[in-house]
Amino acid sequence: MTEEHSLEQMRHTLAHLLAAAVQKHYPHAKPAIGPAIEHGFYYDFDFSGGAAPGESDLPKLEEEMRALLPAWESFSRHEASLEEVRALFKENPYKKELAEEFAREGKTLTLYTSGGFTDLCRGGHTPHPAQDINPRAFALDRVAGAYWRGDERNPMLTRIYGLAFRTPEELEAFRQQREEARARDHRKIGKAHDLFVFSDLVGPGLPLWTPRGALVRALLDEFVWELRAARGYQRVAIPHLTKRALYETSGHWEKFHEELFRITSREGKEYALKPMNCPHHTQIFARRPHSYREMPQRYAETTMVYRDEQSGELGGLTRVLSITQDDSHVFCRHAQIKEEFFSLWDMVDTFYQTFGFSLRVRLSFHDTEHPEQYLGSKAVWEKAERALREIAEERRADFFEARGEAALYGPKLDFMAQDSLGRAHQVATIQLDLNLPERFDLFCINEKGAQERIAMIHCAIMGSLERFIAVLLEHYAGALPLWLSPVQVKILPISDEAASYAARVEEALRQKGIRTVVDGSKETLGKRIRLAKEEKVPFLAVVGNKEASRGTLAVETRGAGRTEEKMEDFAARVAEAVRTRANIPS
Amino acid sequence: MTEEHSLEQMRHTLAHLLAAAVQKHYPHAKPAIGPAIEHGFYYDFDFSGGAAPGESDLPKLEEEMRALLPAWESFSRHEASLEEVRALFKENPYKKELAEEFAREGKTLTLYTSGGFTDLCRGGHTPHPAQDINPRAFALDRVAGAYWRGDERNPMLTRIYGLAFRTPEELEAFRQQREEARARDHRKIGKAHDLFVFSDLVGPGLPLWTPRGALVRALLDEFVWELRAARGYQRVAIPHLTKRALYETSGHWEKFHEELFRITSREGKEYALKPMNCPHHTQIFARRPHSYREMPQRYAETTMVYRDEQSGELGGLTRVLSITQDDSHVFCRHAQIKEEFFSLWDMVDTFYQTFGFSLRVRLSFHDTEHPEQYLGSKAVWEKAERALREIAEERRADFFEARGEAALYGPKLDFMAQDSLGRAHQVATIQLDLNLPERFDLFCINEKGAQERIAMIHCAIMGSLERFIAVLLEHYAGALPLWLSPVQVKILPISDEAASYAARVEEALRQKGIRTVVDGSKETLGKRIRLAKEEKVPFLAVVGNKEASRGTLAVETRGAGRTEEKMEDFAARVAEAVRTRANIPS
Repeated sequence: MTEEHSLEQMRHTLAHLLAAAVQKHYPHAKPAIGPAIEHGFYYDFDFSGGAAPGESDLPKLEEEMRALLPAWESFSRHEASLEEVRALFKENPYKKELAEEFAREGKTLTLYTSGGFTDLCRGGHTPHPAQDINPRAFALDRVAGAYWRGDERNPMLTRIYGLAFRTPEELEAFRQQREEARARDHRKIGKAHDLFVFSDLVGPGLPLWTPRGALVRALLDEFVWELRAARGYQRVAIPHLTKRALYETSGHWEKFHEELFRITSREGKEYALKPMNCPHHTQIFARRPHSYREMPQRYAETTMVYRDEQSGELGGLTRVLSITQDDSHVFCRHAQIKEEFFSLWDMVDTFYQTFGFSLRVRLSFHDTEHPEQYLGSKAVWEKAERALREIAEERRADFFEARGEAALYGPKLDFMAQDSLGRAHQVATIQLDLNLPERFDLFCINEKGAQERIAMIHCAIMGSLERFIAVLLEHYAGALPLWLSPVQVKILPISDEAASYAARVEEALRQKGIRTVVDGSKETLGKRIRLAKEEKVPFLAVVGNKEASRGTLAVETRGAGRTEEKMEDFAARVAEAVRTRANIPS
Repeated sequence: MTEEHSLEQMRHTLAHLLAAAVQKHYPHAKPAIGPAIEHGFYYDFDFSGGAAPGESDLPKLEEEMRALLPAWESFSRHEASLEEVRALFKENPYKKELAEEFAREGKTLTLYTSGGFTDLCRGGHTPHPAQDINPRAFALDRVAGAYWRGDERNPMLTRIYGLAFRTPEELEAFRQQREEARARDHRKIGKAHDLFVFSDLVGPGLPLWTPRGALVRALLDEFVWELRAARGYQRVAIPHLTKRALYETSGHWEKFHEELFRITSREGKEYALKPMNCPHHTQIFARRPHSYREMPQRYAETTMVYRDEQSGELGGLTRVLSITQDDSHVFCRHAQIKEEFFSLWDMVDTFYQTFGFSLRVRLSFHDTEHPEQYLGSKAVWEKAERALREIAEERRADFFEARGEAALYGPKLDFMAQDSLGRAHQVATIQLDLNLPERFDLFCINEKGAQERIAMIHCAIMGSLERFIAVLLEHYAGALPLWLSPVQVKILPISDEAASYAARVEEALRQKGIRTVVDGSKETLGKRIRLAKEEKVPFLAVVGNKEASRGTLAVETRGAGRTEEKMEDFAARVAEAVRTRANIPS
């Protein structure tokens, strides 16, 4: 038995213990169902026969659980008839419903008892609760509403969540990390820093980017474009809707049918909002024949793709209906694949190093047991996957292989970035595609004057711009690096007399392309400094008569101390740090 | 009677004359209908009873018309009964159908005769054809198929088109201008210069932009953005689809219902592809209260809007389903309207002067007889239109007023650019909107701490980027100005020995940001020069050993002669001309 398994057993046992404690304080409660979950457990109750506990009642229930625990020395198991179960739970329609369903399915009905509390249960408990469970390693967490069996046509029950770990230290560590993650929630930071907003009229999953947020998007995209332009990429531009025919040819219509936003025009023509850009880009490549001398052709475009996600799945920027991708497609000869992969991989490395992310690489291969889920033949897949493995080996990368994670048309290198809280996020992807060139009949004219089938390489460096910004905001807890900060320097004049010097400083910094604002409001200097720190502005420049007469600034650097600097030196230093995307101030 | 009216009468008369000539050569022809149209006339015939004329038969028919004309001294008019008309046209189902329809509508049936040829006709001829019509001022133009009454369930007829003007000179001038316009057709230029492409799989009205075309788009957009950034505009970013609720609130759902691409999600939620960006931008403005000190807020975004156009209306870039707009919205106090209009108008002037377009301004007001076609009250419209007239007067602009041309939400300044062929194109627009701020409850907090209703100003400088590029390509006949040319300098090495110097020149020009290619192909220099001229590359730099030893270039400037220049001087000169968007070479 693995450790993980027995932790799950402990959590399951604690769900029983919670039900016992609840029944003691709320005898009218009807327990419904109570499983182990990630980080703990929950139990759903129907309290409609009397009072229901609120969050303020949780400490009382938690203490009750601790009081009951010593008597829970072991579990006894009893196979029961349906009649027996019905009699035992005659006041509890939920247990009866479950028992009847299990009976219909031919399952054995089992009752588990510990410390005098009996529940209908399939088993999977820790054998000696009193001994196995540390009474300080669990805690009740929160109360929520939940429909019986998740169906909104059913009664609303009260769900009590608990956390449970092996040791009190693990419980505390989890709580701290969760608190940190909550403080860093990108939705909270996005609002506090005025980066994006959701409107009820526009709808969930459809973020609107404010001037500050749009600036961050543009700066990130410019960085990616700079990397691409230096490697021979060219921008193209495509429409966001397209005839059904394009995605029939590509195979997306059949495979992604459910997730496509489909449109019928007033003339009855069928269109879709693009779920991918690759089929459009093939049409640009195919507009004229290309000589081998012109290969590779490298197209890049930052544009939106669309997925008809279920609304329950939408949340902040991490799952949206309209996804901005920094997408690129290389059309190349087979002999050029490796070099193009390395060039893309260099860009991915440079990009993520700039933010201090460490990367792992997943070789996402197709599921050999379900070849029907993919386009193309076995031979083509084997060739493509072999090529990817060779590339990863030659690169001496930290990689692992995963079956069933490939794209529709080919295997992928998927990059996982580890953030400052140690969480892994799937970010960049480089994909080898030998199938769409077949489907769209893409070729170049080779040295012999013959048509030669080419390969395609798909790559997104940020992946989804929305998701990447969410990752970034949480990684930095909102303190974006200097070059990405919407306001880079905030100037705080001490007095009215210092205002004209503040204006001169502002103009000098703007001349250097530094994003600067003056906060000359009537608030105290202390309050203005606090506000600027909440806004996580990288540099505060406090100016008074002393600084004006010396031509200096009292500079407070985010996360560091205060220094006095010549205005010109400061301007030059900041401009250079922006230019090089230096990761200061931290 | 106006001159224009009598030109229409001449054209109508020529349609009769054509029918007479056709009946002489093709006695089995059944004339159907023959109106005057812009630039001339046409007549539809049913030739199913025998041979039909092709384009090669037109000179013969044209000569016949000239031969018949002298006998057409005047028209006689005869009011006829339905029976009489039926008898006269007993073999002609088209004339009978028309006569029966007119009779049902209670109209008087009239027959007009000249030169022995009689037609069922409502009149409107030139009184003395032989005298009024110059036999050298008309010509037959082309033959096409046309369904009877434009309905594809009806028989296909043969339509013969003619051109007709007052004088042979006018006819010739029209033909020349048309030929010039055809040579300049943006679809032809777009293909020849590899700027954009249409794919059958993607569909008509949905252009795909190649690397060169995407570059032109980006350069134009950067220019507009440069103008805007200098005037305090900030970029925002919005999704392309939205819940129905947004456009219900804005009023677009009701008014533009037919033209909306509507989408129903898999959960049954109703969405639309955005036909306008203004409602989204209101949601960004409304995300938080704004103090009067923060006003105006100026948002700009180049993004696509969508119209479900009928496929028959689609053509090249001038009518597309997916329109890229350089859109901006100013949210301002009423006292700021005039200044913001002037700032926008300055940008429009600067932008169009750069291309040598002259502008006229149309004050597009609402149709006072159909106020129900617009949002908002009479008082609000009067206020907004008065404000626009004052602005145009104060600007001393060349303006005229047009009723019924307003936007749904307010009156507009529409700018008409005259191109190098003298054609006028509607381009930029600045619109005052006092209605959407009401609908979306937009306000600022004024000096008294109270909510103050604000105004919105909508503006697109290029309007539709697709249509603007079409206008630009035709205006320049494809010879884009230097700063917009995808290739600015083409280097032609005379010999293999000159290749290394050519590479040095290329690198030096690239360092200056000049877009350069070397054509070192095996073709003769003459052929390579011809090719570069066809591509309308602004500068050709021919280099041989002489130039290499002197560090010079033999520069051939588009539309000008050849000069020898120091490489550094040339590079500096070109870079400066690009930077200032100087309109050379022409």
